[in-house]
Order: sequence, then C-alpha cells, then structure tokens
Amino acid sequence: MKRLLTTLATTLLALPVVAAVSETSLPGADSPTIQPDRSITFKLKAPDARSVQLMGGDGLGAVPFNMTRGSDGIWTVTTPPAVPGFHYHWFVVDGTLRLNDPATHTYIGYSLETSGVEVPEPGADYYSIQNVPHGSVRDQWYYSKSTGQWRHARVYTPPGYDQNPKTRFPVLYLQHGRGEDETGWTRQGRAQFILDNLIAAGKAQPMVVVMDRGYASKDLSPDTLQGVRAAFTAFEGVLIQELIPTIDTTYRTLSDRDHRAMAGLSMGGMQTLFITLRHPETFAYIASLSGPIAADLTGNRSVDQGFHDPFDSKLAYEGAFANAASFNRKYKLLWLGVGSAEPAVFRDSIGGAVRTLQAAGVKLVYFESPGTAHEWQTWRRDLNDLVPRLFR
Amino acid sequence: MKRLLTTLATTLLALPVVAAVSETSLPGADSPTIQPDRSITFKLKAPDARSVQLMGGDGLGAVPFNMTRGSDGIWTVTTPPAVPGFHYHWFVVDGTLRLNDPATHTYIGYSLETSGVEVPEPGADYYSIQNVPHGSVRDQWYYSKSTGQWRHARVYTPPGYDQNPKTRFPVLYLQHGRGEDETGWTRQGRAQFILDNLIAAGKAQPMVVVMDRGYASKDLSPDTLQGVRAAFTAFEGVLIQELIPTIDTTYRTLSDRDHRAMAGLSMGGMQTLFITLRHPETFAYIASLSGPIAADLTGNRSVDQGFHDPFDSKLAYEGAFANAASFNRKYKLLWLGVGSAEPAVFRDSIGGAVRTLQAAGVKLVYFESPGTAHEWQTWRRDLNDLVPRLFR
Repeated sequence: MKRLLTTLATTLLALPVVAAVSETSLPGADSPTIQPDRSITFKLKAPDARSVQLMGGDGLGAVPFNMTRGSDGIWTVTTPPAVPGFHYHWFVVDGTLRLNDPATHTYIGYSLETSGVEVPEPGADYYSIQNVPHGSVRDQWYYSKSTGQWRHARVYTPPGYDQNPKTRFPVLYLQHGRGEDETGWTRQGRAQFILDNLIAAGKAQPMVVVMDRGYASKDLSPDTLQGVRAAFTAFEGVLIQELIPTIDTTYRTLSDRDHRAMAGLSMGGMQTLFITLRHPETFAYIASLSGPIAADLTGNRSVDQGFHDPFDSKLAYEGAFANAASFNRKYKLLWLGVGSAEPAVFRDSIGGAVRTLQAAGVKLVYFESPGTAHEWQTWRRDLNDLVPRLFR
Repeated sequence: MKRLLTTLATTLLALPVVAAVSETSLPGADSPTIQPDRSITFKLKAPDARSVQLMGGDGLGAVPFNMTRGSDGIWTVTTPPAVPGFHYHWFVVDGTLRLNDPATHTYIGYSLETSGVEVPEPGADYYSIQNVPHGSVRDQWYYSKSTGQWRHARVYTPPGYDQNPKTRFPVLYLQHGRGEDETGWTRQGRAQFILDNLIAAGKAQPMVVVMDRGYASKDLSPDTLQGVRAAFTAFEGVLIQELIPTIDTTYRTLSDRDHRAMAGLSMGGMQTLFITLRHPETFAYIASLSGPIAADLTGNRSVDQGFHDPFDSKLAYEGAFANAASFNRKYKLLWLGVGSAEPAVFRDSIGGAVRTLQAAGVKLVYFESPGTAHEWQTWRRDLNDLVPRLFR
C-alpha cells in the first residue's frame, strides 16, 4: 500500500499541474495554453466573425473544432487531450478564410506559413535543449547549375567541430516531407538538440547533418507517379552532383560511402530509397521515416494508386532488393519506420514492404512509434532511434 | 544624338520590363507582383469578405489601400510606385481581422509574424547573393543565468573562417529594432550578403557579426523612459557578462576593445549608444542607425516625450561626450545615420544631436539614406556604408 501511494505520488508530481503557454508562442503571448491533461485551449479575437473553426494536422484531434464567441469578441475552444509533440494549426473564419494564429510563430507546412503548437511529452527530454555541449546549425548557400538557382541548406556541425580542426566527420543527409522545407528538421523536428543529447550521452558518433531543400523542379506537387519520378530525378541530380561535392569541400567530412547516410521523412523517405538504392557507390546507410514504399515510379497512375501496389522485392527499385545477400553485403543499414496511428496508406505500404523484405532475407531495422501519426513526434522518435545506429 | 540614344537604350534595358513575383513569395505563388514602375499588385482570395484593405510599413505608400473584389472572390489592389526594398504588409478583412498574405513568407515585425514584399532597386546589387565566397550564418544557443533562459543569437563567420583555423577575427555586435528579433538582420536585412560582397571586393575586413535578441526583460515594450532604461540595463548585463564571453570562447575572435564594434537600428541604435558609452573598455566602434538619441533615460516621462528633449552634449549619456578631445581619443568611430524620409521624431532627434556634437568638436560620421524612411532599405545602405569603416 505504501509503495502504491509512493508510486502514485511520484506519478502525480511528474505531471504538469498548471496550464502552460505553448513553446511555439510569440514572446508575450498568452495563447495557446496546454492543460495538464494535454487538452489545448486556442483563442482568436474576431469580433465581427460569424463563425470560427480550429483546423490542424495529425495529432491535434478530430478537426474542425467549432469555436465559441465570448462577449469580448474573442472566440475560444478547448480540444480533447492531444498527442504529445508539434502540431500545425490554423483558423477558418466565416467558412472560407484561412487565418494563422496571431499568437504563435509560423512554420513551413502545407506549402504555406502555418501556425504550430507544442504539447510536452512527460519524461521525454531527448529533443529539449539541455546543459550539454551544443553543435552549430549553419545556413549553407550554393549555386546549382542544373536548376539555375541559388539553393539553401541547413548544416549541423557537432560539438567539437571548431575545436578539433583536423578531425573529419561522417555525414547524414536528412530530408523533410512534402509541403515542408529545409527548415523543418531544426524548427519543427529539433534535430539539432536530438543530436546534441545523443552525442553528449555517448550514444551517437559526432556527425555532420545536412538538411537540404527537397525540391529541384518547377512541379512541386506532382500528381502522377511519372511526375514524382521526374521530380525525384531532378533532386537526385542536385544532391549527387552539386550538394555532396559542396559539402565535402566546405566541411571536414569523411567522404567515402561508408561514412555517408541518407534519411528522410514521408516524401523525403521516398526520395531516400529512390536515390540511395541507385547510388550504392555514394551511400552505405539508408533510412525511410513514414515514407510510402512505392513499387514502381512509372506511368500516369496517380500517386495514391501507386501506394497501393503490392511490393515485389524482385522488381521494386530496379531490382535493388532482388538478391538479398548481395543487398545485405552492400548496405550497412536499412531502417524503416512508421507511426502506429498513421493512416492505412502509410502503415500498409511500409508494413507490407517490411514483411516482404524480411521474408526475402533482407536485413532491416523496423521501428514503430506508438500512438503517433504522420507528424513530427513520430519523426523525432525515429531520429532518436536511428542516429545511434549510424557509422558504427 | 547617337550617344543620347545609346544612353537611353542602356537605361531602358537596365529597367525590368515585365512584372515579377516578389522574392519573398512562397515557392509556386504568383503574388505579390512588382511592376516595372515599382507599383505592387497584391491579391487575396476572400469570397465572403465584406471589405479588404492592404496595410503595411514605411515605404509601401499611404496605407490603408482599399482592395476591390473580383467576380471570382479575389480582392486586388495595385499600389502607387513603392520605395525600393523590403516592406511589411498584411490585410484587414471586414474592418478588424488582421490577416497575413498567404502568398509570402513571414518575418518577425511588429512583434508578430508579418508578411513582406521585396521591391528591387535598379542597379543595387550589394545586398544580393552573388558568385563570391560566402560566409556562414550559424545558430548560437547559450544559457543566460541573469534571465534563467536559453537565448538564441545568429552569428556570421566570414569566408575563409573554416579554412584558416589559426586566424582570429574582429567582431561586430549588430542589433535589430523594436518588434523585430535576432533573425531580422539576415532575413529582412540580408546582412550576410552585404558582408560577403564587401569582403569579396576588398572593401571590408573579414569579421564575425553577432546578431542577438535585444530583449532580456519581461517588459518587451516599456512605455516610460525609466522602463526603457531598465530593459536596456537587463540587455547590457546579458551582452557584457554572458554573450561576449560566449562568443569569445566559441569563435576565434580578437577579443580586445579595438577589435569590437556595436551597431543597431532604431531601438538597437539606442541600446548601442547606451551600452557602448558606458563600456569604453569593451567597444571602440559605435554606430546608431535610425536610433533616436535620448538625452536622459530617467523618470516616468513617456518615451515620446524623451525623444523631444533637446540634446545636451555635456549631460547626455552620463557625460560621455562632455570632453570632446577625450571622447575622440577613446573611440575609433562614432557613426550616426537616418533616412531622409523618416518621421520628424527620428530626423530631429538624430540631426539635432549630430549638429550639437559636431559643434562641440566630437568627431563622427553622419550618413543620410536618400528617399527612404524607417525601413530596411535605409539600414541595408547604412550597413554597406558602415562596415568598410570598421577595424581599420
């Protein structure tokens, strides 16, 4: 009984007991607030609106939520308890007008500037800034001949990079998803703090992480699988012929394949499989986070149709998996992950490919994030599991 | 006649002849568009709105501009020719609802995420990214004991910083204005490209530039001069006791006063004068860009009242200017600037102080940006004039 009470008391003490303003809020803002049960209260001053609804991404709940007008012209709503992590949100006024939350910072999502709210996960401090040595995140501009444009990547250099000017480091290329950009992994994903904490704990090798913009063609959101292949091929050219040489001449990298990894989330995961499996001379480590595993990027079928193709380990990715023993010798890691609450199109595509590959003898790591959907908390957990497995 | 025609043809060729989408627009967006005469066309889809107005900052014109509804529910307006440079803008729907432009990126301004438009200045390429060696802009996190918070600064390291691991560099501390933050100088101001271009042309010394967050107290916008002084004192503590030691241990700096400058715009200019004049042991170079020159930061008078105080060179800033010869020996540069189209409160305050200081024998550089107001084009020009004068 005493032990039960102690456990209960410890649990209660670990839970937040007062509402807190979201970490994503602008300085001085008092909204949105997260309650101890992880329900979230949003507000918007719109005295002349006829209706206001709250919209948002996976993890926020069953949007839209209708908001209620107070006598002061401020509309409010409190959601049911939300999944921990980062969630996009916005308001819809009078049925059609999309409006960001004036109380928060915005983030590139849905190909727009979009508001976000951060729901703490009790006990999870692996993505918090802590009192450990910090790496540096840098803006890297480079001119791309193939696109005729200046491109922008974000580059993480690990703690000690500046202090040890003769040490060279392995490199992880880490890609965002559709509708997001090269700022997603550091702003929404907090990749730099995940790396800092893993390196400080001795769980991961110090490494450089390159987060580039995943678009290199004019068609940002192709509708057909053929269109997707064309877009990925354009990005493949930028990555292999322009970005990697830029990184290897600008930073102190280990520039052989055994010290180069690629990972990406969603669209970035699809790009990772597409590119790394065509370039075994360039990459030894492969990770796809919530990336639908497309069997065949050809033809005018819709992207959605392609995601429902059964995965054939002999034919997929130009036969890269056809000989399991050869694949297992060639690559040092194949890592595939999905959130347990993701929509069926992701779980079925990834789960089906994992079962087929394992049955064929392909060695892989499969990671399932419990209770999270197609959202950043899944990808933070993924990165935290993945990074310690690289460059061992 | 032939020469006249050639000149005319050359001039015409140098002008843009078709409307161009703003450089601040999101990928794929077709708005706002800038016409060859620098008028700007904005649009917003709001089929159910009863009225839509365009609002914006200095340089955009005589806001508000009423927008006109098309049969497709898209509201549009074309402004008169705008001042070149970066301008904040937003929409007001039905008289009260503030809405960002869904077509553009947003920037921290007015203490909010705020849309922005970029109007090219013909012939001005000093703030464009060019085919020259580029420095790097890094995120620098540091724990601040005095505020109990992790703080974030942006740090520019010049081209060659990584390649010459024994070279040490002078440092410019460069501050934003009220309602903006540590991201302003690189996102709105393009300071990194101004530095890159000046260094490549041999016009400026390679230097580290530190852009910190200018708030260190809970009161972000004090109403009284006493409140301003308290806020500045809190930031002074962070800068002198926490930030500078962090920078000098993290980066390869020349850490004596003769290799340290401070500059700021508007509120940042006021902070610069307040801090550098109290710390001659720390700074040898001083620049205030569009910063009202407050005579006396004491008492419960409003900020606006203080800005109209006559400037007394004997009493101002605790007597720092009282002995002109001593001041001239102590500091290597005092740089003061203002835009010719700024509101009277800035022109009178800065102009009055310049005349009084010059009459008293204080050596200074005065720079007036023609035709620009309290806006980023003024501060880009300021930085381009200032940086070549530092560390000579």
